[in-house]
Amino acid sequence: MPASPIRKLVPYAEAAKKKGTRVFHLNIGQPDIETPPQILDAVRNVHFKVLEYSHSAGNESYRKKLVSYYKKAGITIDYNQIIVTTGGSEAILFGFMSCLDAGDEVIIPEPFYANYNGFAVAAGVIVKPITSKIETGFALPPIDDFEKAITPKTKAIVICNPNNPTGYLYSREEMEILKTIISKHDLYLFADEAYREFCYEGEHFSAMHLTGVDDNVILMDTISKRYSACGARIGAFITKNKDVLGAVMKFAQARLSPPGLAQILAEAAVDLPDNYFETTKAEYKLRRDTIVKRLNNIPGVFCPNPGGAFYAMARLPIDDADTFCQWLLESFSYNNKTVMLAPATGFYSSEGLGKNEVRLAYVLNVDDINSAMDCLEKALEEYPGKTPASL
Amino acid sequence: MPASPIRKLVPYAEAAKKKGTRVFHLNIGQPDIETPPQILDAVRNVHFKVLEYSHSAGNESYRKKLVSYYKKAGITIDYNQIIVTTGGSEAILFGFMSCLDAGDEVIIPEPFYANYNGFAVAAGVIVKPITSKIETGFALPPIDDFEKAITPKTKAIVICNPNNPTGYLYSREEMEILKTIISKHDLYLFADEAYREFCYEGEHFSAMHLTGVDDNVILMDTISKRYSACGARIGAFITKNKDVLGAVMKFAQARLSPPGLAQILAEAAVDLPDNYFETTKAEYKLRRDTIVKRLNNIPGVFCPNPGGAFYAMARLPIDDADTFCQWLLESFSYNNKTVMLAPATGFYSSEGLGKNEVRLAYVLNVDDINSAMDCLEKALEEYPGKTPASL
Repeated sequence: MPASPIRKLVPYAEAAKKKGTRVFHLNIGQPDIETPPQILDAVRNVHFKVLEYSHSAGNESYRKKLVSYYKKAGITIDYNQIIVTTGGSEAILFGFMSCLDAGDEVIIPEPFYANYNGFAVAAGVIVKPITSKIETGFALPPIDDFEKAITPKTKAIVICNPNNPTGYLYSREEMEILKTIISKHDLYLFADEAYREFCYEGEHFSAMHLTGVDDNVILMDTISKRYSACGARIGAFITKNKDVLGAVMKFAQARLSPPGLAQILAEAAVDLPDNYFETTKAEYKLRRDTIVKRLNNIPGVFCPNPGGAFYAMARLPIDDADTFCQWLLESFSYNNKTVMLAPATGFYSSEGLGKNEVRLAYVLNVDDINSAMDCLEKALEEYPGKTPASL
Repeated sequence: MPASPIRKLVPYAEAAKKKGTRVFHLNIGQPDIETPPQILDAVRNVHFKVLEYSHSAGNESYRKKLVSYYKKAGITIDYNQIIVTTGGSEAILFGFMSCLDAGDEVIIPEPFYANYNGFAVAAGVIVKPITSKIETGFALPPIDDFEKAITPKTKAIVICNPNNPTGYLYSREEMEILKTIISKHDLYLFADEAYREFCYEGEHFSAMHLTGVDDNVILMDTISKRYSACGARIGAFITKNKDVLGAVMKFAQARLSPPGLAQILAEAAVDLPDNYFETTKAEYKLRRDTIVKRLNNIPGVFCPNPGGAFYAMARLPIDDADTFCQWLLESFSYNNKTVMLAPATGFYSSEGLGKNEVRLAYVLNVDDINSAMDCLEKALEEYPGKTPASL
């Protein structure tokens, strides 16, 4: 079981803070956006006497509400095609455990969300990466790369759209290419759409919008980022494939039920006004525009414009992202401030890739982002492991 | 992955209710005791702005409080030896995944909590049952039975104390026998102590009270039954073994954090007045005394007196517990009432055992228990598959 690549830097951040240095956290996807007070109120107003187990698939009232949420996103499902999970994490774990046997392979475009590795290890599943490139803004790798990676052991492709860590928003055309591949080889398409609402360049095209592949598509979802409620731990596993639903229900029953209090909060979230996402999205877009512009203005830095989520991947003129990110915390400060970034190496499965890339989560307000970019600019001047920009 | 043996009967219970029959649920461990209002108030009074991920091991403030809870139970641990989990379920899953490799074996005295099977399947671990018998009240099987079951693949023993489903309370002497076995063969002892406070015959002796086996003992705990807060989904994985803690933390980090709102509730629970358990325990003891007396007064029924938890196992004069439990829901009623029981077959791993045994959870008030026993008494008169009591 691999250690979390981002968490390895935590002790250095703690040491920096103890020295009195302010650390701008661009390293993790913990939004600073307020959890909507209305949904916290729903929990404050509970009036039951016994906090009982919920249904293993989640409260029926919540699942029925979710149907209307998905309908607004153009996704038509029935409430009994939804299994409420403990965060998106459990949805991914359930998917791996239910759809793949130990030793089976799953193809994931890299760089990818590092915790997929953890769930793959837990399920005994082997991750086969295919590489997407910063030069194309991390677009879907060519179909040939998929074909080359597919073996008789391949059972699924995982796609995160919009993407964590790259922020890339897959187009309808790319999703149709994926449909062609999964149809041809009868693979599952696991679609992690945690950031569905946060698209800044065009509309989101869901894996559930694909037609004719109902039994192949599995949606793995979470309320964590959508409503800035990461600590709730409420996600969803959604598919029209009855056999898969049956298999997942057995795992769901073994762990009895998803969190009860948080389901109340999640149910209230479906009733938020329609303009809720507009406000949040406008704020994230402003932050994205700020950070991408600032990054590309630093000599030797290249940052493609991410179409969604709240992440940007940047190539820096440095020898080694892990060393650099540690150095930022351990040996650098500017006006008593520094910045914490996620080295991209942890998001690549192929050895040696991402050594001059970092992921930046724009989960801070614009002023803090600007201060963080001031730090980064200064740091890249001072860093002893600087390399020519052409690398 | 096996289907939950109890849940298989749910459609029959639903059909009975639709017909207007009242069903007394003695089939599941969902207590009717009120969740203490003080701990629900703690959630009602939250005043944070963002429901963030907690630490992957759980909030430090909660873990520090838990140290004082365990101290009262005579268990001395440090807060960093506690990893807060999503229910006891996740603690068990983490234990199997971290301490055993796929194909390794775990010995569990049967009958045992059926969901252990689910977690074993998820972790690729093989369950080797050794049988405890109703004639001895489900005491620990003889040491020879353990010795015969141990192979080079054996890595752990699971004990639930007091026991679900039998209610048996393991004595200090039995725990010392387990210590001898785990020391001799260097095995882990996974101790599920969810019902620690509910002991009616003598004191609870925890696996953490055993001396000299700090690196072998792993405590799997949950607040579900303790505070009648099953829906919270807060448990704990506790050990002094640093390597195991390190391995579990990787799984904990992959799933990010345990439920946030429920941790607030759980933390408040540690501050409940010392007499909280006295009241609950007195209520459960009264129910136990009632149900055990009623059962043993029915001709042909034998129910050993359980020392703890809130379960009783009874041997009935019937051909097949699964058929009987279904018949109770499908074909029987008495004054428009019937009773739902858990067939014991689902708690045995060895084929064919438990066919004339049922588990009864005394999670209803004494009046309802008496009405349920009236039903059972009548049902055993009418049931077509009745057998001589001597079987």
